[in-house]
Amino acid sequence: MRVLGPNIFGFYYPHNDLCATFCTPYTKRGSVAFTCQSGGVGMAVIGFTRAKGIGVSAIVGLGNKVDIAEHDLLAFFGRDANTRVVAMHMEDLKDGAAFVAAAREVSPRKPVIAFKTGRTPLGSKAAASHTGALAGVDRIYDAAFRKAGVLRVRTLDELLDQACALAVLPPPQGPNVFVHTSAGGLGVALADAMFDEGLEAMEIPADLEEALRKYIPPFGSFRNPVDVTGSSTPDIQAETARLAIEDPRVHSVILGYWHTIITPPMVFAEAIGQVVDQARRKGIVKPIVASLSGDVEVEEAGRYLEERGIPSYPYSPERAVSALAALYRWSRFAGLLPP
Amino acid sequence: MRVLGPNIFGFYYPHNDLCATFCTPYTKRGSVAFTCQSGGVGMAVIGFTRAKGIGVSAIVGLGNKVDIAEHDLLAFFGRDANTRVVAMHMEDLKDGAAFVAAAREVSPRKPVIAFKTGRTPLGSKAAASHTGALAGVDRIYDAAFRKAGVLRVRTLDELLDQACALAVLPPPQGPNVFVHTSAGGLGVALADAMFDEGLEAMEIPADLEEALRKYIPPFGSFRNPVDVTGSSTPDIQAETARLAIEDPRVHSVILGYWHTIITPPMVFAEAIGQVVDQARRKGIVKPIVASLSGDVEVEEAGRYLEERGIPSYPYSPERAVSALAALYRWSRFAGLLPP
Repeated sequence: MRVLGPNIFGFYYPHNDLCATFCTPYTKRGSVAFTCQSGGVGMAVIGFTRAKGIGVSAIVGLGNKVDIAEHDLLAFFGRDANTRVVAMHMEDLKDGAAFVAAAREVSPRKPVIAFKTGRTPLGSKAAASHTGALAGVDRIYDAAFRKAGVLRVRTLDELLDQACALAVLPPPQGPNVFVHTSAGGLGVALADAMFDEGLEAMEIPADLEEALRKYIPPFGSFRNPVDVTGSSTPDIQAETARLAIEDPRVHSVILGYWHTIITPPMVFAEAIGQVVDQARRKGIVKPIVASLSGDVEVEEAGRYLEERGIPSYPYSPERAVSALAALYRWSRFAGLLPP
Repeated sequence: MRVLGPNIFGFYYPHNDLCATFCTPYTKRGSVAFTCQSGGVGMAVIGFTRAKGIGVSAIVGLGNKVDIAEHDLLAFFGRDANTRVVAMHMEDLKDGAAFVAAAREVSPRKPVIAFKTGRTPLGSKAAASHTGALAGVDRIYDAAFRKAGVLRVRTLDELLDQACALAVLPPPQGPNVFVHTSAGGLGVALADAMFDEGLEAMEIPADLEEALRKYIPPFGSFRNPVDVTGSSTPDIQAETARLAIEDPRVHSVILGYWHTIITPPMVFAEAIGQVVDQARRKGIVKPIVASLSGDVEVEEAGRYLEERGIPSYPYSPERAVSALAALYRWSRFAGLLPP
């Protein structure tokens, strides 16, 4: 990479123990490269990824882009073996055509996510006084991102969530999502979010339902979302999750955990961790995300699951669903799934 | 309140040290009453409010509503001196007319927020197998909520965020929002979110700009969002925030903090806490929210500000803006501001 020109943030590349900024030190290695046109966004990346415990492959501040621009970084991170996802914040693009060309080359192999700010009249005025960016006509950016296979997000929350999730999730092998929940009400909220995001709740095949019935009490639900109920022991939670995860007709799993005394948060996390490890040893790898509803101990359980490649969202059903939906959007774009 | 019938969660009323559930103990007193038709949602309330350090006035699980329904609770919390906001999760309403009547009576005095799930075809099927709820035609719920002055949210995230913010924020005296940021890029993201949410960035009057110029370096911005820049000392941050908070033409303030070595998170939080205390002693009370971008220390700073009545959102510009926007929606509905 060329040496960066003047900017107000600098850059991190933890895989080489490189930390060239005036901000806090950061050494946790991960696989998302973040680029940003503002140190304010860069610092949010540091705190957010550190709190989640997942690390980054790089954080680069671009400042006023006197020498290096987004397309240079995109080309670099496209070739960088430590980077699986490129997440970019920008207020403008100096060379739109170069960006589209670079993104088209990279995005079928690695997800490229763009958080383009200054997209509203008020925001674009603010961008002009911040970096002098001519934020431009927003629908042109929209069209360029679509053409280049770039996932566009509207909020910093989405940039952080989606980048961190896509960095660890394997692509799904098909559309069938299985929702495994221990609280029916959480299942309803997950189902609403799935509908909003265009995810497909698979029909539970008769033989799988029969297998689930051996574990789930009659007041549970065998439709999708499958409600194993709050009365489930850790064993029941694990065995029913295993049925979903190891069934080849299931392509993705959403876990909706409900904190109970019977199955406390860390007990649940460890049980799921084991099931996932055992499946992996059989060569079964599929995307799993978790929504964790409970007392503050779910935050620790979430970090445990994150470290095992399961993006986890304390207190939120919707963020878990959005993260999986972003993976589906990218997989369809990249031709890994039919559109 | 009548004794609750069978349900799977129970209830908390910390102001009377009452904790009648099989879930974790909870004693932190606050001023939001949460009602929910699912223990999965109730447990998210416990963890979320505990993590934020703000407490509740009550959490009530309604289960299958064999005796008490939402309108009973709404009438009760409408009269309850410990409750400032009523936040309700539901999969259906057994008696829509009674709910609308109760909500119309309460909502001009206290914000009523509804998270009605089962609003999509997939969610409504899940609700039917969870509580037997006939989730109904969603646009009828929409119309009923609007008629009754109920703020409807689409996600559990919004329910939690908005309820907790409205519980502590005073109503604004007018539309003028002042954005005080130390990172220009954060200001741009805040401005985009304000536009999306219909908030008004006030024009900075010439005399206020002149006063700000005494503190802010020339590479800052004196337009709104006002960028005091990352080079600002704690004193400069405090004095510029004071100019905004104490100016009677400013009705609400959004703080966009950027973590720097010059003004670390807790130093910022304490400086702002002092300014707000001093203003309150002069009788100046206005809504203030904060978006905190930085390393994980911003989480502690956020809790410090929350305890002083400033809803604070680590890593997120958009959630801070949404919380303030919910306050404006309610204030307009309640006739405290012109529509």
